[in-house]
Order: sequence, then structure tokens, then C-alpha cells
Amino acid sequence: MEKYIITIGRQFGSGGRAIGEKLAKKLGISFYDKELISLAAKESGISPEVFENVDEKAANSLLYSLSMGLYSFGSGFSAMGDLPVNDKLYILQHKIIKDIAEKESCVIVGRCADYILKDNENCVKIFFYADMVFRKREAVKKHGIDEARAEHIINKTDKSRANYYSFYSGQKWGMAENYDLCIDSSKLDEDKIVDLIADYTKIR
Amino acid sequence: MEKYIITIGRQFGSGGRAIGEKLAKKLGISFYDKELISLAAKESGISPEVFENVDEKAANSLLYSLSMGLYSFGSGFSAMGDLPVNDKLYILQHKIIKDIAEKESCVIVGRCADYILKDNENCVKIFFYADMVFRKREAVKKHGIDEARAEHIINKTDKSRANYYSFYSGQKWGMAENYDLCIDSSKLDEDKIVDLIADYTKIR
Repeated sequence: MEKYIITIGRQFGSGGRAIGEKLAKKLGISFYDKELISLAAKESGISPEVFENVDEKAANSLLYSLSMGLYSFGSGFSAMGDLPVNDKLYILQHKIIKDIAEKESCVIVGRCADYILKDNENCVKIFFYADMVFRKREAVKKHGIDEARAEHIINKTDKSRANYYSFYSGQKWGMAENYDLCIDSSKLDEDKIVDLIADYTKIR
Repeated sequence: MEKYIITIGRQFGSGGRAIGEKLAKKLGISFYDKELISLAAKESGISPEVFENVDEKAANSLLYSLSMGLYSFGSGFSAMGDLPVNDKLYILQHKIIKDIAEKESCVIVGRCADYILKDNENCVKIFFYADMVFRKREAVKKHGIDEARAEHIINKTDKSRANYYSFYSGQKWGMAENYDLCIDSSKLDEDKIVDLIADYTKIR
């Protein structure tokens, strides 16, 4: 079997995660999203709850990190003992993503995976986005977010993702040229998008 | 027959124009690129040569426009007599693009057509880009540009296109969210890209 490594960047509410999950199922390959946190926790001995708070968030300034208790002194992962938890998580996920891509076909959501695997020729890098009407509907339906607050939460989450991406990759989040394929998921049914990407991946 | 309106934004050397031409042929629909200049010239009575110099270039400042002779006083298109030629061309092309999209299926290259037709639900908006190695090779092969100067010309042309796009649309050129589909044309054969877009256009 051919090897498929597919990374997915996504605006909040674009349905990128769900498409990635269906795609992994269709291609019969592994799927990684929050699973990357458990792996990082296991590898470092740091509790998953600590990582969940900083997942896909850029490191804050030193003083802010200290005041918020985002430093984890004397952790089990001693070589990185002095780094903010955000940076620790990034470094761990960086290593885990490289390892996974080396050993198996998979779909990886977020976490700068496109940037981390940019020199991997097997890697298909995808970005999903959608108009605000679509994303608000998804936020309410799939994430149980209150309609009145949906736009605010979408913008806040995307700002955080954009900061994280730009902080660790030095690239601008959402610029087409960082990806192989960018798709407005509000313009086509989810299943048709899955088929389109499966076809694209196979003909490359 | 279904109606297809396809707009193409493209980095210089990405092959976007050639893909657009093949796509139009495959779908049996009209193709507009430089043709938009002839139409604007015909409509305004201004010579095509005057328009060619400012095509897809944002208007300069008033003093610069005057010093470069970019003003065309007393033109046949009297209602716009006092505008820089760049702005006249944009306004004419804006009208022509709207008219064409109203009356026929077509592929339109550049000239902010995605922005001009953003409220047209039939419109499929595509952006092409590619890595610099690919674009340099295309610039030499298809545009006869000297290899030593290729990267400079690519960057200069794209800067001009980005300025033009941002000046008239208020949006950032190359941001995925301005388009329905963005494709790195260095990752897939030209003919496969044509097939992919033809399929995408038909299943929407």
C-alpha cells in the first residue's frame, strides 16, 4: 500500500476535524487530533490536563507564564524543565508527529503539522475554512456553543490558532501557499470533500 | 447545460493561465485573460496599448500618475475623464466581468474577478501557486525570461498583482479564504489539475 500522510489545518467551525476523521476511515489509516496530547503526556510524564490547557496556544511571555503558573518546574521531562508548558508540548508534539509520519500512514489535525512535515514529500497538506454563517451553525450544532456567543468564540479560537501557527512556524496561518490544497468546506458536502481529497491523494 | 463561472487568481509562473485555458476547452466554455483589455478598449475608445501598460497594476498617486502621463484627459469615455488610466481600466473590466458572468459560462483570469463576482453563487473561485523552483522553470520555459533574472521578475510581478488585488478588493492576495479552492500546481500534473477542477465544478 502507498503511504499517505495528510495534515489538516482548519478554521474553527469549518468541519476540518470531522472531514479528517472520515478521510482517515475511508483510507483505512490512523487519525490524530487530541490523541497527540495523550501521547505527549505519556512521553513526558506530565498530566494530560496540564497540556490540554495550552494545546495549540503559543507560549506567553516569561512574566505572564510565571504569574499564570504555566511553568512546570521539576517536571519528569527534565531536559526541558525550564520551558513554559506550551513550548514543552510543542517540542513533544513535534517529535511525536515526526515519529508517526515516519512509521505509518495517518491524518494529523492542527499543531503546525504541515510546517513540521514540510520537507516530507509524502505529505499532503490541507487547509479548511468556511464562511461565518456556516461556521456559526457548526459551532452551535457540533460544539454546543450558544448562538449569541458563537462568532466571538470562533474569532477568539482562530486568533489563538493563528498566533500558535505563526509563533512556531514563522508563517502566516491561512495563506494558501503553506498548503497543497485549501478548500472552502461551506461550498461542498462533507462526503464529497472526503472523496475529492481521497482522489487527490491517490493521483499524486 | 449548467452554467460555470470560474475565476482564476495565480502567482506568476504557477501555470494558472494555462490550466485555465485547458479547463475552458475541456468544459467547452469561453476564456478571458488579455481579452478583457481588448473589450475595455473597445468599450471606452481608449487604445489597447494604453491599457496594457497598466493592466493589473494599482493606480499610482496623483502626482506620479501625472508625471508618468498615466492620466488620459478628454478620453472618449468622458464620465471617467479625470481618473487615472488604471482606475478607468479597473472600472471597465469590473463592468465587463459582471456582464460576461451574467450572459455565459466562462473562465476569467486575474483582475480581481473573484472579488467582483463574490456574490455570484455560480462562481467557482480558484487560486494557483507553486514553489519557487517550479515557477522559475515555468518563467524560463513559457515566458522566455532569462534564468538569472527569473526570481526577481516573479517577485516583482507578484508584488504588483498583490497590490492591485489589495487596492481594489481590500483583501489580502493569496489568503485561502478569498477562494473556494487553492491548489499548489507544482504538486500535480497540469492535466490532472484540470480534471480535478472540472470534477469539482460539476459536483458542486
